[in-house]
Amino acid sequence: MTSAELNSYLDDSRELAMREIREIIPREGRCHRVLYDLMFDYPLRPAKALRPALCVATCRALGGTVESVGKSAAIVELYHNAFLIHDDVEDGSENRRDGPTLHRVHGTPIAVNVGDAMLALALEPLLDNMRVIGMGRALRVLQIVARMARESAEGQALELDWIRNRQWQLTDTDYLRMVYKKTSWYTFITPVLIGATVAGASPERSRVLRKFAALLGIAFQIQDDVLNLVGESGAYGKEIAGDLWEGKHTLIVMHMMRTAGRQERTRARRILAKARPHAPERASHGAHTHVAETLQALERRGEIGPGARRAIEDALERSGGPDPGNVKTEGEVRYLLELIRCCGSIEHARSVSRGFALKARSILSRAEWIEPSVHRDFLESLIGYVIDRDR
Amino acid sequence: MTSAELNSYLDDSRELAMREIREIIPREGRCHRVLYDLMFDYPLRPAKALRPALCVATCRALGGTVESVGKSAAIVELYHNAFLIHDDVEDGSENRRDGPTLHRVHGTPIAVNVGDAMLALALEPLLDNMRVIGMGRALRVLQIVARMARESAEGQALELDWIRNRQWQLTDTDYLRMVYKKTSWYTFITPVLIGATVAGASPERSRVLRKFAALLGIAFQIQDDVLNLVGESGAYGKEIAGDLWEGKHTLIVMHMMRTAGRQERTRARRILAKARPHAPERASHGAHTHVAETLQALERRGEIGPGARRAIEDALERSGGPDPGNVKTEGEVRYLLELIRCCGSIEHARSVSRGFALKARSILSRAEWIEPSVHRDFLESLIGYVIDRDR
Repeated sequence: MTSAELNSYLDDSRELAMREIREIIPREGRCHRVLYDLMFDYPLRPAKALRPALCVATCRALGGTVESVGKSAAIVELYHNAFLIHDDVEDGSENRRDGPTLHRVHGTPIAVNVGDAMLALALEPLLDNMRVIGMGRALRVLQIVARMARESAEGQALELDWIRNRQWQLTDTDYLRMVYKKTSWYTFITPVLIGATVAGASPERSRVLRKFAALLGIAFQIQDDVLNLVGESGAYGKEIAGDLWEGKHTLIVMHMMRTAGRQERTRARRILAKARPHAPERASHGAHTHVAETLQALERRGEIGPGARRAIEDALERSGGPDPGNVKTEGEVRYLLELIRCCGSIEHARSVSRGFALKARSILSRAEWIEPSVHRDFLESLIGYVIDRDR
Repeated sequence: MTSAELNSYLDDSRELAMREIREIIPREGRCHRVLYDLMFDYPLRPAKALRPALCVATCRALGGTVESVGKSAAIVELYHNAFLIHDDVEDGSENRRDGPTLHRVHGTPIAVNVGDAMLALALEPLLDNMRVIGMGRALRVLQIVARMARESAEGQALELDWIRNRQWQLTDTDYLRMVYKKTSWYTFITPVLIGATVAGASPERSRVLRKFAALLGIAFQIQDDVLNLVGESGAYGKEIAGDLWEGKHTLIVMHMMRTAGRQERTRARRILAKARPHAPERASHGAHTHVAETLQALERRGEIGPGARRAIEDALERSGGPDPGNVKTEGEVRYLLELIRCCGSIEHARSVSRGFALKARSILSRAEWIEPSVHRDFLESLIGYVIDRDR
């Protein structure tokens, strides 16, 4: 499958899911403007729609019809968008799909509530699905969704705990466990298992597909981490080196923290522990940056002495936020990037990612019970896409 | 039923729900400490357990068994605790059930994730319920939960929108619509409908019970708002006058804003628009209070001039937070309380609450198909409890 064909398969699947989503999210009524409109925000931004495509392709490659899988593809995409909103709050992300994150525009309270409302709305098509694919399969889909929600919350909990405790004594295995839960289950295993369920695949075949999805998910996440550091602004929907600003635990940073010399490691750890300077809209750290700059300027002009300055900085620190000197600078992030380059951590990540993709390919090639079709082609081409994509 | 008997009924129902919840939340494994432990935090704090009791009493009053309703009572309580965590984040609440809110202790990212994980876990007993009460009733329970989650997100969206737009041109009808969604559906209609479903009640009987629950829910919420302003610290799990600090839209404040003279109303609106000073742990406004105090002290001592002070205040304002003078003071909250007293808004609220409770009582008394029993007694006594309770 050429890259153009692959993109067109992705687009078609997205359109299928979006048609259903438009049916699910109410378009009028009293809560239209204050709630349902906001639910369309992320789904309507440009996105790959990997999840609906995986769901559709798996189902159809196993002989399922496009009619039977539409609702399930929509459920997968709806859950994804709900979690994206909450993840962006949890990670303090600034941008998503070429625009500011929902919580930056509308505030954390509204963003958390919109995410909850989307999770609630997703329950209704899960139940409606019974009329389309029958009770047994619809219940199995529900079970998969329940498991997925639990696995991804566990993965997120592990990562948030590492961040909270500034834990960097971690191995590739720790990372792979977290990513298996956070990315594989959520982005790959769930759509593939749901697609297989809708098509009525046997438990053994579902198990094979699940393994394929797990491996591909890990390859995908590592490549995502690589792109975050090497991608060009514009080609990639998120901020450049956002992972470093956030102090995120990627395979790359973990490798660098194991490989760098003691002195470099200590400096890197200190930088990673610093907060990111937030966009001015609402976060607390924004205040600190502004005030820090103002204090510098006032001191330069002799309008305040060092004592007064120290007192104000202390007040900021007492407030629980980072002191003005404790926010990452661009120079520091550039230092981390350089250190990562020196340690060969990007190459390490690329090779690990490639290894998982090859294993996924080998599993798929041995699954001869999946007849040749454009849908099988899509699944095969996706492997190359996952590790070669530039966004 | 005496007050002691009512409390013991509540305690027994809570224990029934907690026994099931202990089965649902994993107690060991890798994510135990970083995720599942935190899920027990709110459920184990002292609480009334109104929701499980309503579910159990309705079911048993209609002839259902205690064995058949345990899982459903747990589901109701689990959802409630998940939403509490997210609500506390959304409302910026400081305390919950005699302790600091989860997000104040562990930060917003972890709190949002724990709430999501609880919502995910609640799906599993919803499915398990099939083995206990059969497919049809278990699916109906699922539908009720889906509707509840949507209704309460809608109610929350209405309220968050009023707060965001500082909307005070509101009538009792606006308030009742919001509270019907936010409180009635969530705290009363859902447990009652689920209890009725488990017992196999007919659609007509379920409709009557739903109306009873809706009216009681409104009475309950208004009394809750009253208690927030008149309760004594310690007797009531939340902070005193927390609603005024938060600038919440209660029937009481809305009545005061309609009744007060123009000048008072303008001052009240200005006060309500101010942010609450947050506890120092993590929120941005905490920074502003500390810095405001420090700036005052420095200026008093002549260490900074008014120009420098203004520049720093501007920097704080530019950061998106309130300027230091824009945080509510205790004197201002006391002014609001006094204004509310002068307008007779508490009496107005009490009388509206009583009116709804009486309607609920009249519906229940006409439902002669509910045989006399301790469970029917509980539902009847609950009406008095809702409007007479002091916490």
